[in-house]
Amino acid sequence: MTLLDVMRNRRSIRKYKKQQIPVKEILQVLEAGRLAPSGANQQPWTYILVTDSELKQEIRKEAEMVEKNFHRKAPKSLKNWFKKQGITPQKSFLTEAPALIVVAGYTKATPYWLESTWMSIAYVLLQAASQGFGTLTYTPSDTRFLNKLLKIPKDYKPVAILPIGYPAEKPSPETRPRKPLETLVHRNKCGSIRF
Amino acid sequence: MTLLDVMRNRRSIRKYKKQQIPVKEILQVLEAGRLAPSGANQQPWTYILVTDSELKQEIRKEAEMVEKNFHRKAPKSLKNWFKKQGITPQKSFLTEAPALIVVAGYTKATPYWLESTWMSIAYVLLQAASQGFGTLTYTPSDTRFLNKLLKIPKDYKPVAILPIGYPAEKPSPETRPRKPLETLVHRNKCGSIRF
Repeated sequence: MTLLDVMRNRRSIRKYKKQQIPVKEILQVLEAGRLAPSGANQQPWTYILVTDSELKQEIRKEAEMVEKNFHRKAPKSLKNWFKKQGITPQKSFLTEAPALIVVAGYTKATPYWLESTWMSIAYVLLQAASQGFGTLTYTPSDTRFLNKLLKIPKDYKPVAILPIGYPAEKPSPETRPRKPLETLVHRNKCGSIRF
Repeated sequence: MTLLDVMRNRRSIRKYKKQQIPVKEILQVLEAGRLAPSGANQQPWTYILVTDSELKQEIRKEAEMVEKNFHRKAPKSLKNWFKKQGITPQKSFLTEAPALIVVAGYTKATPYWLESTWMSIAYVLLQAASQGFGTLTYTPSDTRFLNKLLKIPKDYKPVAILPIGYPAEKPSPETRPRKPLETLVHRNKCGSIRF
């Protein structure tokens, strides 16, 4: 498989097998996150690997409370998208996935701590896919509960939870249609004739 | 080469050979950007491929003006880092690289347009590396001049310029030391005993 194949075949996974992933394999996934480029080489990312069942339960409970609130207040366009995609405040993957990777960024690492942390997340997602694992980028609308539950220092902002495990579903590409390349790329100036 | 090898060997490149890259090859690099995941599948990224010499000259001129200003006002820690890394307001790679990829994000694509755009950039950087091209993630501290020069609509915010070309330098890994994995990964709770 080429890198483009890995990118093309990767899908967000919401259903996971119970089977645990060996920690060694997860560390290899996180090694990818370590290798991402970052603004001024600050490497502002931190990864908290959550495998404890009770902790996953607590995370799910808090996340679902946050989501209920968020769904209630979401703009109409987002509400419609949620509905179309079957996304509800229920986050069963948080307890069903054998492991959760909580990603936090060190907010005092200037410049570009957020941007760098998301590049690191992209590296992690790709490496996980290349090892055959399913992941999902779940971004709770408020992540302060994670600071509390996981004792993450307040200078670190949790930005995403990545459940990871063996996929128990195979979402079709059609559920996430892609814009064609020619609508995304311009030559020299926007609106210019393209390729 | 495995994906981890590509990640491990990738370095920011500041010196490029004059040789042009075939546009077809650059489109393959940008195809990777197209395939990144995004918040609510909004795919908020736009890529402007700049190969026109005069336009590159203008971009360099404006960027260096912005940088002179930025360096003057930078906090001391960043100034020291710039000095140590030999980074000055001079951005010769903007005219020396055969092509520049300007990345802009659609700011009205809620949620997470910025985060998504940076995941797309990470995909582009990796794909470029896997095709043997050098790139650099250059983030001008103010990017409004790019809107003007490249006729980028004001709802799109340019976030980075990625020069791309055949590398004319081979930076040593030691210039960018990496934090060890065990300092970045925690198990279940921060500060817990690790692996």
